[in-house]
Amino acid sequence: MKIAALAGGVGAARVLSGLIEIIHPEELTIIVNTGDDFKWMGLYICPDLDTISYTLAGIANPETGWGLRDDTFRLLDRLSQLGCDTWFKLGDCDLATHIYRTHHLGEGFGLTAITRKICDALQIRAPILPMTDGSVPTIVRTDEGDLPFQEYFVRRKCTPRVTGFTFTAIEQAQPAPGVLESLQAANAILICPSNPFISIAPILAVPGIRDALRSSSARVVAVTPIIAGQAVKGPAARMLEQMGEEVSAVSVARMYQDFLDEFVLDCRDHELSPRIASLGMDVRLAATLMETREQKVQLARTIYESLI
Amino acid sequence: MKIAALAGGVGAARVLSGLIEIIHPEELTIIVNTGDDFKWMGLYICPDLDTISYTLAGIANPETGWGLRDDTFRLLDRLSQLGCDTWFKLGDCDLATHIYRTHHLGEGFGLTAITRKICDALQIRAPILPMTDGSVPTIVRTDEGDLPFQEYFVRRKCTPRVTGFTFTAIEQAQPAPGVLESLQAANAILICPSNPFISIAPILAVPGIRDALRSSSARVVAVTPIIAGQAVKGPAARMLEQMGEEVSAVSVARMYQDFLDEFVLDCRDHELSPRIASLGMDVRLAATLMETREQKVQLARTIYESLI
Repeated sequence: MKIAALAGGVGAARVLSGLIEIIHPEELTIIVNTGDDFKWMGLYICPDLDTISYTLAGIANPETGWGLRDDTFRLLDRLSQLGCDTWFKLGDCDLATHIYRTHHLGEGFGLTAITRKICDALQIRAPILPMTDGSVPTIVRTDEGDLPFQEYFVRRKCTPRVTGFTFTAIEQAQPAPGVLESLQAANAILICPSNPFISIAPILAVPGIRDALRSSSARVVAVTPIIAGQAVKGPAARMLEQMGEEVSAVSVARMYQDFLDEFVLDCRDHELSPRIASLGMDVRLAATLMETREQKVQLARTIYESLI
Repeated sequence: MKIAALAGGVGAARVLSGLIEIIHPEELTIIVNTGDDFKWMGLYICPDLDTISYTLAGIANPETGWGLRDDTFRLLDRLSQLGCDTWFKLGDCDLATHIYRTHHLGEGFGLTAITRKICDALQIRAPILPMTDGSVPTIVRTDEGDLPFQEYFVRRKCTPRVTGFTFTAIEQAQPAPGVLESLQAANAILICPSNPFISIAPILAVPGIRDALRSSSARVVAVTPIIAGQAVKGPAARMLEQMGEEVSAVSVARMYQDFLDEFVLDCRDHELSPRIASLGMDVRLAATLMETREQKVQLARTIYESLI
């Protein structure tokens, strides 16, 4: 069995940490959104890559879902005293990752190679790949103008009204080494329960990736990030509403219609099942909210049944 | 009164922190060695500048003399887990300074301007200037080959036998903005009790600085870094011995003979007084060891008397 997964941050990390409990981690290749990446104080920060790797290594902060467990913020406090903007909360231990990554980028290593080094040090056995080694920063178009993603998401707390998205220079981006290969080799492809606009869409926009999904003979399965008209985490529901879409799993399924074989819908939304099926895909009902480890593993089992 | 001081690290920091207790800090301009500066994990580190500024701000680690009081080392521990060399001990709060500096260098600011920003944030009123905005890394020539200074000093703990020093690209270096001006405007110039080979010599080697001292009408006074044949801190005595020089204050006085008006010698070395006087300079005896605040201020008063 070879599974490739397209992943954003916290929601994806939860599903994937369940999945590696029931499969051999080496069977899973995780392709991660890097549109949220940004530079801060000269340091190159990859929030989704770090959330996935910290979670799979079992060292993520369980309360926030991002950052490291029991981290401290002394360096950031000091930078604040030096007059720096410190709205992005980076812990002392977390910053080691960013210094490490930035240093090795400066030495000429690619993001894929650096991510592999970090994952090796964290003893993560499932390969984690950035979607591209290039820089393709997501810009959120809003009624207050264009905002770099973290500016919209963290600093402005998703308050400006969204009118669209730009994935800067994505047409020139190349899939990172191993990305197309893992999609081509996969028996099954999982679209994690991540924000379709800002986590999955950037991955699909990297030239070659969406085509690889469309032409794949592997079973492609998505797990809903929307339950009962709400996002489990983050601004997905708000974005659907502001983009003039129905705030439901149907809209998400429609965004993946051209390549999806099966949609894992939350039980609470069972009445949407016929509408999603009418898009030409199978529908499976599951309890998709993961609050306990048991729920996580149970969902992973359901997903695994869909994939095989 | 306008005083300019040439300074290395810990010894200089102690004398200067005494001096600003008895004069208006604005009367003192401190010109600091940057030959020890180095890059580590992409971060630009200026040990002497930081030791001076942390000490004058009252936040230096009182035990080591360098680094910050009550600092933690969580980031460094994490980098060690990622497989990085962590022989240079950088604390979490200390690293904020290096990230800040590196970021602003990357933005095109000069080291002088960045140092001013840091000192402003630390509310240090005495201007602190790097000797140059350029990069002039000190190389220690040893029987084991050429070693970058921190490699010799921290990693190898001064064990290789020294045969000489190279101040890389120093001939092309320019004094930092304000350096020659402060020397020209000074009524008095202080050579701090710093290592003559690796702290003071690099400053003097920046084109224009030694000439400014030679031609200055200001009184130029040096405080001995050698007491009773030993360095108070660091490898000065060992270097004198390995370079085939007499291990005493006389050798230091000789290195400054061409511009020095007065040498502050430790009382314990009073028998050297005639030999130093014969070099054509005044000699003043003082208790130069600074273990308590009282000793520091007492020495500062003696120095001040020499300077005026």
